[in-house]
Amino acid sequence: MKTRQFVLASRPSGFPSRDNFRIEDIVLNELKNNEILLKSCFISVDPYMRGRMNDVKSYAASFEVDQPIKGGVVAKVVESKDKSFQAGDSVFGMLPWAEYSIEKAENLRKVDTNIVSPGYYLGILGMPGLTAYFGIMDIGKPKSGETVVISGAAGAVGIVAGQIAKTQGARVVGITGSDDKCKLLKEKFGFDEALNYKDSKNLRKAISEVCPKGVDVYYDNVGGEITDTVIANLNFHARIALCGQISLYNSTRVPMGPAILPMLLTRSVKLQGFIVSNYADRFGEAFAQLTLWVKDGTLKYTETIIDGFDNLPDAFLGLFAGKNQGKMLVKI
Amino acid sequence: MKTRQFVLASRPSGFPSRDNFRIEDIVLNELKNNEILLKSCFISVDPYMRGRMNDVKSYAASFEVDQPIKGGVVAKVVESKDKSFQAGDSVFGMLPWAEYSIEKAENLRKVDTNIVSPGYYLGILGMPGLTAYFGIMDIGKPKSGETVVISGAAGAVGIVAGQIAKTQGARVVGITGSDDKCKLLKEKFGFDEALNYKDSKNLRKAISEVCPKGVDVYYDNVGGEITDTVIANLNFHARIALCGQISLYNSTRVPMGPAILPMLLTRSVKLQGFIVSNYADRFGEAFAQLTLWVKDGTLKYTETIIDGFDNLPDAFLGLFAGKNQGKMLVKI
Repeated sequence: MKTRQFVLASRPSGFPSRDNFRIEDIVLNELKNNEILLKSCFISVDPYMRGRMNDVKSYAASFEVDQPIKGGVVAKVVESKDKSFQAGDSVFGMLPWAEYSIEKAENLRKVDTNIVSPGYYLGILGMPGLTAYFGIMDIGKPKSGETVVISGAAGAVGIVAGQIAKTQGARVVGITGSDDKCKLLKEKFGFDEALNYKDSKNLRKAISEVCPKGVDVYYDNVGGEITDTVIANLNFHARIALCGQISLYNSTRVPMGPAILPMLLTRSVKLQGFIVSNYADRFGEAFAQLTLWVKDGTLKYTETIIDGFDNLPDAFLGLFAGKNQGKMLVKI
Repeated sequence: MKTRQFVLASRPSGFPSRDNFRIEDIVLNELKNNEILLKSCFISVDPYMRGRMNDVKSYAASFEVDQPIKGGVVAKVVESKDKSFQAGDSVFGMLPWAEYSIEKAENLRKVDTNIVSPGYYLGILGMPGLTAYFGIMDIGKPKSGETVVISGAAGAVGIVAGQIAKTQGARVVGITGSDDKCKLLKEKFGFDEALNYKDSKNLRKAISEVCPKGVDVYYDNVGGEITDTVIANLNFHARIALCGQISLYNSTRVPMGPAILPMLLTRSVKLQGFIVSNYADRFGEAFAQLTLWVKDGTLKYTETIIDGFDNLPDAFLGLFAGKNQGKMLVKI
């Protein structure tokens, strides 16, 4: 059977471009025992994948040049040579950016698309939702009345992190890059305040104005100047859940900034860098809680869905320009 | 009764000087009930006191201009109007830099100078020892075989932190500023390796050579370039006990450096800024353990003792030039 897939054509230096990706026509092998033939429905594009385009050892293995890009995919079973799956089942897997693919049954997980939209398993009920859950519940641990600031607040992780912080009784402030997103955060997702950083001439002052009692928990998705500024507003015993640094992922030289350690020292700040896989043994607990909260309406979500397989690179590149509200997905 | 005391003559900008201090002759009041007349024996000078010379809100209140400098002092009771203390008792208190002073009984703690040298209550059995204890045992938590790096390793805190890490089975590497101090760390205090940062043209390479398996715990007393370099050598799940930033205390502008958060993120590093008073409710436990270790010879210590009340400012200034080995004290 024929299909198309995206491979890494070349490694980007700095901001990636369409040229770093290439579509290839390939022929899939015959299905073997315990293998499943899958048709991709929704393919996830995520900021952390930028790191995998580099040839640098990190927590996620590098993509190889001329080899397929892989990421989170919700797919439908076309044909199954494993008794656990049947044609028509919806599954989640870490699969190639391809229209069709073959995967071993053991690497797939069935998902129930009757409860929620299939894309939710790539967002609020997937890696971004779990990431938000552990960053808030295990690291930030906001107490009632404390101020929680979320950067990249309108992204796939940020909107979940903010809403989870609200369940703990915190006052939640989102930092994002447009007035539309500010409106969304406050009106749909219940953030107490939202700040458009592109609109602030004096970001430090703007943050101190929306956080008159200082910042107790900072959930950082972006890094760079925004983070330096939030750190200047931290309270004694503040916590930083260090989740992403999207503003720096395309830097070609080591980014410079003010030394933050003197501030973290004098305020007895706790900072924890993390990736969701650190919490693999607690995924069950988190998934159950998130599912409950989605079902009972406590947590809301939104997706930016781009249509068409060919648009995968553009959807990915759009993440770095803030083109998504909530989870960025490509519908195949 | 007449005495002399040091007051803050002016606030320093950048590196402090002798001119920021002034000796005053004062007359002490008559002793009231529950007050004690004290003769200072050993006065502590500590790097954190630099912060108190600024007019900036921090964890320790600022010294006021024209008011006495205060810090840790071991003193002898001259006269007591409280039944808990008798003439001749040795006590610890946060007292003015004065030859004689009066303090309420409730702010004093008796110390046993028969067991150890009186200065130890300002060092290994005082604030620096407790700071080392909690930074290693509560934050760094080194496991057997892990690599622990200590900056400012030959200072009052560093030599204790390194030896405590050794009790946990860790491999301990000290960073310090002279070959003599390197020798001291290895020969007297049992550090596995010691690095003279002033002697290293390529500090990052030098650190990676003495830490071939990377760094699991970093106990930071200094900040700045040394810290940036150690961070580049951190392992996945490393811990940073953020205790001091002495290299930056005299900066007149915000020090700039490489953004460290991307490294802390991808390696899932935990960082905790702390001051010893965060652990006030566990001082008893730590003091008992440290006393035991000192008595049984597990922990050794050293002091740099400057003679003469008039030399207090010079002793303090010497901290920023690395003139001390172990605890810097002034004997009155």
